[in-house]
Amino acid sequence: MSEPVVPVAIGPDRPAPTLVEKAVVEGGAVVSDLDEARGLIWVGKPADFPPLPESVEWVQLPAAGVEDWFTAGVFARYPKVRFTSAAGAFAASVAEHALMLLLAGVRYLPEHLRADSWRQQDFFPHVGSLRGKTVTIVGAGGIGRALIPMLTPLGAHVIAVTRSGHPITGPDIPDSVETVSTDQLGKVWSRTDHVVVAAPATPETRHLIDADALSRLKPSSWVINIARGPLIDTDALVAALSSGVIGGAGLDVTDPEPLPDGHPLWTLPNVIITPHDSNPPQLRLAAFADHVAANVSRFVAGRELLAPIDPRRGY
Amino acid sequence: MSEPVVPVAIGPDRPAPTLVEKAVVEGGAVVSDLDEARGLIWVGKPADFPPLPESVEWVQLPAAGVEDWFTAGVFARYPKVRFTSAAGAFAASVAEHALMLLLAGVRYLPEHLRADSWRQQDFFPHVGSLRGKTVTIVGAGGIGRALIPMLTPLGAHVIAVTRSGHPITGPDIPDSVETVSTDQLGKVWSRTDHVVVAAPATPETRHLIDADALSRLKPSSWVINIARGPLIDTDALVAALSSGVIGGAGLDVTDPEPLPDGHPLWTLPNVIITPHDSNPPQLRLAAFADHVAANVSRFVAGRELLAPIDPRRGY
Repeated sequence: MSEPVVPVAIGPDRPAPTLVEKAVVEGGAVVSDLDEARGLIWVGKPADFPPLPESVEWVQLPAAGVEDWFTAGVFARYPKVRFTSAAGAFAASVAEHALMLLLAGVRYLPEHLRADSWRQQDFFPHVGSLRGKTVTIVGAGGIGRALIPMLTPLGAHVIAVTRSGHPITGPDIPDSVETVSTDQLGKVWSRTDHVVVAAPATPETRHLIDADALSRLKPSSWVINIARGPLIDTDALVAALSSGVIGGAGLDVTDPEPLPDGHPLWTLPNVIITPHDSNPPQLRLAAFADHVAANVSRFVAGRELLAPIDPRRGY
Repeated sequence: MSEPVVPVAIGPDRPAPTLVEKAVVEGGAVVSDLDEARGLIWVGKPADFPPLPESVEWVQLPAAGVEDWFTAGVFARYPKVRFTSAAGAFAASVAEHALMLLLAGVRYLPEHLRADSWRQQDFFPHVGSLRGKTVTIVGAGGIGRALIPMLTPLGAHVIAVTRSGHPITGPDIPDSVETVSTDQLGKVWSRTDHVVVAAPATPETRHLIDADALSRLKPSSWVINIARGPLIDTDALVAALSSGVIGGAGLDVTDPEPLPDGHPLWTLPNVIITPHDSNPPQLRLAAFADHVAANVSRFVAGRELLAPIDPRRGY
């Protein structure tokens, strides 16, 4: 007896993006037209969202934040359909970028790249390692959480700072990871070697990394920001970098952003700027396809879906 | 009842290096004079090796390769004493350096560091990720093996190339890691996205990465060498880098080494040179201290020691 075929449509485009078609097949379903589909992978905008036939039980949306779909009334129109977002799908690429910035800083890569001769003795004392060092991740949502299992195999100790302070757990999170609540943030700086800023931008988190926080770090500390520019007080950061209060900064986001030509952050030798490109378009599609494959496979098997949207909670 | 105290001496210096003293205590022993010690952590040379009292059961040596201690006859003099080397202790730092070079290459860091304006659209298409990519590690001794659990959490697939091709196993090695034998090397290039060279330098491994191997890689492939310069044919590498046959190279070792001023590798935009500083002196001491702590703790608990020297095998 052959297994039942699960038809899943992709919209609005036919031909659909190849990676997404492959993901549907990889997940164990077959790509079908919408009018016979049990699932729909929607890669378009809310405004173009199609009328759903009765057969559709599940819709995968392409964004991590789905405010626009609420505004468009999509969920209210289909109360019996399960919707999933792409929340979590894009975290890994940004976390990898944060790891790259941190390692490049700690291992003194900017100065290496300026060299045109073999300056081994000059460089030796400046090459550091994450082994045995404490990395404080401020904000442990998708990105911060994804970064933890990338750091611990390097022998780094991780302190995760979250709003609640509830311990972060999971099969890929070692027991040694500490979680502290945001209101205890002032107490972790003295134990911190490096900081990764991964918190959402809210009025409360504006200038979370200010002159006072920077002054409690070490002359070897690197500060990485892959979240939002305003989480760091830029003037205080420039002062700390210029005076050697901290070791350096790796910034995928800045305040102001884009960073204007001639800004001091462009010329400080201990700064790495990447222009908010930690998750570029071609990686987004691949990450979305991975997420689709995982959810199709769960749908086919009748298992719980990743990133379910709860219309009552609003996300 | 208090637990029995295990006395461990450190030589030849008193005061001993602080990190090593801390490691002995961390491992659960107490630092003692040699004449009452059950263990000795020796941080000096073979020529200065002291006469051992009857009480000493175990000696930790400071080097990974212990040919000089054989030559000096140390092991023959104390056939009842267990000796351990520092083999494996220094692998983690070099593996971390390899990861840094690979990530910096894949994420297009050299060009980012030359920018002094917000070139997001220029950079987007060049920012890659290790997720879903295949990294071939040529040589899976201490360094190559240490690199595997640093790569797999990033979603990279690892092919380890070893002399025997026997599967590499261990609690930190995922089942998905493939092992192939060196004589199958020609067959892995078509499946390889990036290469890390981590093999010993022998007559057989000279120019293991030659024009032919490079030609089978991808225009996006990065080649990382943290082993020995002659494993790569430098002229072929320069040609492949200049013509876009591969994406880039991250080199902690070169041939010739030191790389002379004016060499083309200094000016190619897709090359990262670090002057054999992946394991600088201050990291070596810290890594040795970690090794000491682990072995003291095993000694105190009566467990098997790390890196035991077998005088009959000669290493």
